[in-house]
Amino acid sequence: MLFPTHFDVIVVGGGHAGTEAALASARMGQTTLLLTHNIETLGQMSCNPSIGGIGKGHLVKEVDAMGGAMAIATDEAGIQFRILNSSKGPAVRATRAQADRILYKQAIRSRLENQPNLWLFQQAVDDLMVEGDRVIGAVTQAGIRFAGRAVVLTAGTFLDGKIHVGLNNYSAGRAGDPPAISLSARLKELKLPQGRLKTGTPPRIDGRSIDFSVLEEQPGDLDPIPVFSVMGNVGMHPQQMPCWITHTNTQTHDIIRAGLDRSPMYTGVIEGVGPRYCPSIEDKIHRFAGKDSHQIYLEPEGLTTNEFYPNGISTSLPFDVQLALVRSMRGMENAHILRPGYAIEYDYFDPRGLKSSLETRQIQGLFFAGQINGTTGYEEAAAQGMLAGLNAALQTQGRESWTPRRDEAYLGVLVDDLITQGVQEPYRMFTSRAEYRLSLREDNADLRLTEIGRQLGCVGDAQWEMFDKKREAVAREMERLKSTWVNPRILADAEAERVLGKAIEREYNLVDLLRRPNVTYDSLMTLTGADGQALAGPGVSDDPVREQIEIQIKYAGYIDRQAKEIGRQEHNESLKLPADLDYMDVQALSIEVRQKLNKHKPETLGQASRISGVTPAALSLLLVHLKKGGLKNVAVSDNHNEAA
Amino acid sequence: MLFPTHFDVIVVGGGHAGTEAALASARMGQTTLLLTHNIETLGQMSCNPSIGGIGKGHLVKEVDAMGGAMAIATDEAGIQFRILNSSKGPAVRATRAQADRILYKQAIRSRLENQPNLWLFQQAVDDLMVEGDRVIGAVTQAGIRFAGRAVVLTAGTFLDGKIHVGLNNYSAGRAGDPPAISLSARLKELKLPQGRLKTGTPPRIDGRSIDFSVLEEQPGDLDPIPVFSVMGNVGMHPQQMPCWITHTNTQTHDIIRAGLDRSPMYTGVIEGVGPRYCPSIEDKIHRFAGKDSHQIYLEPEGLTTNEFYPNGISTSLPFDVQLALVRSMRGMENAHILRPGYAIEYDYFDPRGLKSSLETRQIQGLFFAGQINGTTGYEEAAAQGMLAGLNAALQTQGRESWTPRRDEAYLGVLVDDLITQGVQEPYRMFTSRAEYRLSLREDNADLRLTEIGRQLGCVGDAQWEMFDKKREAVAREMERLKSTWVNPRILADAEAERVLGKAIEREYNLVDLLRRPNVTYDSLMTLTGADGQALAGPGVSDDPVREQIEIQIKYAGYIDRQAKEIGRQEHNESLKLPADLDYMDVQALSIEVRQKLNKHKPETLGQASRISGVTPAALSLLLVHLKKGGLKNVAVSDNHNEAA
Repeated sequence: MLFPTHFDVIVVGGGHAGTEAALASARMGQTTLLLTHNIETLGQMSCNPSIGGIGKGHLVKEVDAMGGAMAIATDEAGIQFRILNSSKGPAVRATRAQADRILYKQAIRSRLENQPNLWLFQQAVDDLMVEGDRVIGAVTQAGIRFAGRAVVLTAGTFLDGKIHVGLNNYSAGRAGDPPAISLSARLKELKLPQGRLKTGTPPRIDGRSIDFSVLEEQPGDLDPIPVFSVMGNVGMHPQQMPCWITHTNTQTHDIIRAGLDRSPMYTGVIEGVGPRYCPSIEDKIHRFAGKDSHQIYLEPEGLTTNEFYPNGISTSLPFDVQLALVRSMRGMENAHILRPGYAIEYDYFDPRGLKSSLETRQIQGLFFAGQINGTTGYEEAAAQGMLAGLNAALQTQGRESWTPRRDEAYLGVLVDDLITQGVQEPYRMFTSRAEYRLSLREDNADLRLTEIGRQLGCVGDAQWEMFDKKREAVAREMERLKSTWVNPRILADAEAERVLGKAIEREYNLVDLLRRPNVTYDSLMTLTGADGQALAGPGVSDDPVREQIEIQIKYAGYIDRQAKEIGRQEHNESLKLPADLDYMDVQALSIEVRQKLNKHKPETLGQASRISGVTPAALSLLLVHLKKGGLKNVAVSDNHNEAA
Repeated sequence: MLFPTHFDVIVVGGGHAGTEAALASARMGQTTLLLTHNIETLGQMSCNPSIGGIGKGHLVKEVDAMGGAMAIATDEAGIQFRILNSSKGPAVRATRAQADRILYKQAIRSRLENQPNLWLFQQAVDDLMVEGDRVIGAVTQAGIRFAGRAVVLTAGTFLDGKIHVGLNNYSAGRAGDPPAISLSARLKELKLPQGRLKTGTPPRIDGRSIDFSVLEEQPGDLDPIPVFSVMGNVGMHPQQMPCWITHTNTQTHDIIRAGLDRSPMYTGVIEGVGPRYCPSIEDKIHRFAGKDSHQIYLEPEGLTTNEFYPNGISTSLPFDVQLALVRSMRGMENAHILRPGYAIEYDYFDPRGLKSSLETRQIQGLFFAGQINGTTGYEEAAAQGMLAGLNAALQTQGRESWTPRRDEAYLGVLVDDLITQGVQEPYRMFTSRAEYRLSLREDNADLRLTEIGRQLGCVGDAQWEMFDKKREAVAREMERLKSTWVNPRILADAEAERVLGKAIEREYNLVDLLRRPNVTYDSLMTLTGADGQALAGPGVSDDPVREQIEIQIKYAGYIDRQAKEIGRQEHNESLKLPADLDYMDVQALSIEVRQKLNKHKPETLGQASRISGVTPAALSLLLVHLKKGGLKNVAVSDNHNEAA
């Protein structure tokens, strides 16, 4: 049967990509249908119980700035929040949260269920309806046909999914879920460029069997507890919990090496390439053979469960090896595994076959988002989902598609990387992928994106009002700081030393003064004239506004330098690289980058820059090496020392 | 690999049967493993979001009396509680609750995760390990072998499960879950007596699309809110919600009839027999052709979801028919279906192949519980699970098996019915199946079972102490009532009339007085002597104790009569029935019973009594009919007027 309601946008899949796609399209007023094989698994975290991290947190904040769900759902479900790199520059500071899986699912499902214009329907999709080169709907397992003017496919690891535990393997979409075999076959008939990737997950541990007394506790940031969404607040957070740290040791590594002859990866049973930046433990042992210990985080899976997620030991080794390696670690001697670790292979489609709107070039109206495009990670999936849903909605509104540029958002970096470079392995986001990363900060995600999000129609009234107020407050205060001058005549030297570190010799405005190191906004506001009159304050009291003022002023110099740096790198784009260079000699580069450069032997620095994993920082180091070696016309930057 | 820990008892399946089996075995101190294909679905309510009801509530209370989880989990998850038949005799009063699906799952999972001696492991089971005629373990999908001295198989609808929506069908264990095909094939190799059954579920409705303003509201009992478990209390209950009532109409019935040519049941696509007492709407329309409306309850699925479960329209009709029939009902004109209704066919095993311990006769140590034995219903599954887990534990302790007799518990009725009569259709419990139903009440489930449960080892300390206290209090108070005499000389006539309805003419003890109609325990306690002295009170204040005293005293006469009745029926056991009797003429019987009797043409009344669905009440009616017709030696009862 043909379902009587015809939809503007149909989203297939209810994971992180599908959720944001469906919500974005529905927020934009389009009649949207979300098809999922199981309503109970909406918003399920298939792998680690955490959201965010460096580069990833940035994506989450950008999705949030566009009205998305991931950040606010995390605020409702997060049982540990941390600001990573909090001692480093604001560009690489990133929010990361452990989430209670059950609360996260609930937060997402509740948003999906209550979103106006959004219809949910539970049934696996077996086929797409295609007319000429245009998609016109989707067909479920029971033969129900849903007409849609655009379709966003977010199939995750389900397309012809195959789970590996040692040399055993079987078809599945995820542990406990059936695979999508019919849909995979039908997509193959459409002859889209396609391949296989793999990803993995660690065994899960029964907390009752862990000896926490010998483990190092890792609490979250508690004063204050960070918040993810601009619409969130600390009051939304449930009870906070610590993580725990253990380590692999030489015995662990021996156990793993002894099991490699039954590893599906090392015996060639798995064809798909796995994520370099989220490697299996066997991969790590193999690649970093010199290291005899790796840190393993034991992450709680929720407030109402004893399950722990041992972050760092993703594996597809046989179960006996999994059990032995887990029990070889301190505190884990009696550990009981509740769910075995496994690798899963699945179909993905070469993202170079996509437009920047994430629409496939071959089939009009068909959008892809998430792991189907060769990415890994919830945040990468959510980011693509939001963009694909937005662009599907725009298309059905007869409007131009929208994708931010690389200098506007990590969203732009993500899409540009995917569609121009494709993937050789599951792609994950890093700050080092973004050449404009000093401008693409978590703290200004809203200032970069919420206005355009509002114009596009995916930012709701409450968020817009809050944003508008903040933006105005920032602008007003910035204006005040610029136009407030402090004259040495009315500032006592002692007071200047107290607040500014030394006396001033001429008139400065407050922006100039705040730019000085060690001067904070708060301290500056206390500056008092010789006559007892406040010279700078009272300032604004709203935290996000103060933070924004301070970062914008203090960071302006770095951002200028970054612009020059990018200019230099553009100049170096066509710089020829010596064909006989053995990159293994470039000690400053990571082993990974050296291997990649030796494998690809790029002709120009531009080509080198487009090899996945060769970061702008690595390029800078390479340039230093070449310059030392006498290569001419090299413009070298010194700005590569932020964290990845 | 062989898992290093060897288990006493392995339970396969994490539904209602598997949960109670695993918990019972572990409570009894046996090292127990629960294998489930998905830890996330532990305690999932696959069909209606409710627990209990007539006959079923009795089973839940009995499982509770033995230390089981279903009642207390319902107390933690129940969003509407009602005492059914509250105006009728205590034997047929039954507790029924709507449950929040998510809270119910959480309550069950939390108990499973925290039960000492119980290990959980997530992976589908593909095979059993059998040595000679004894089961010695189970093998998972990834080839992990778990040794166990007994195995309880609770596979629900998963064994070779096949879902039907109209003439479309596909393999699945339940909507969204993969089927157990390998295990089904392996069990067939074991040549256990096997067949196919089917069950069904209705489409689920988005509450946002229902017009509640035109529907009848059905609140739960709110003053007081009932409690299910002896260990429960009202404080555990979450927020309470009403149900809503709509009706099918002639248009609905026309739609259904017009769809029958595409019904998998009416075109012979489904081989399995469905549950008579939970029929699909197409079955109801067909069987009760004269009825032009059926009541449909819209049951909320939880506090955090908009989903509604329309109880009464289970169907496997094609989806277009489902949509039309749903929208033909009042308040449902714009209803959106979130999940289609479907029928599912699955393997079951003839329970006549089981011992009363629920161990298979053919394979030692292998126990079956739940739908695999041909039953339907969460409560029936839980009851069997608890018994199978208990008996598996007893076996591995070298102890005798235990099953209550028919006069001790509905548990006994259930097992006895299954293993002696087998099933022709999915079996569900009714009070009418229990000839001793006046003694098998919800209110005395603990008094009937907790002591033996404690001896067997499956009742914990807290429950035992609470029970012991209650039992003693009942005995003490009963003793006091028996030995407290009221003499007419010290009781003024006016006071006697106020409390007892009329003056007393001789000395009575309080038991005698309480036996009188209209005298309640509470009113009796106010009885005051001519000298202002309390003659009966103060009594006990504890509600369950007062209730028990009152019921035991007031019900003694009925229970005596029941014993005589059973004597009469035993006398009738060998009574010959006329071979030429057309049962369609016995107007007093339900159509269903008439059809069954005509089909089976039993030779004796004993045989008639063992036909599934022919209740003791029906037998009484039949006897009246035969006696009128002049049949000799018939002992007729007049005690068939409680509700089914």
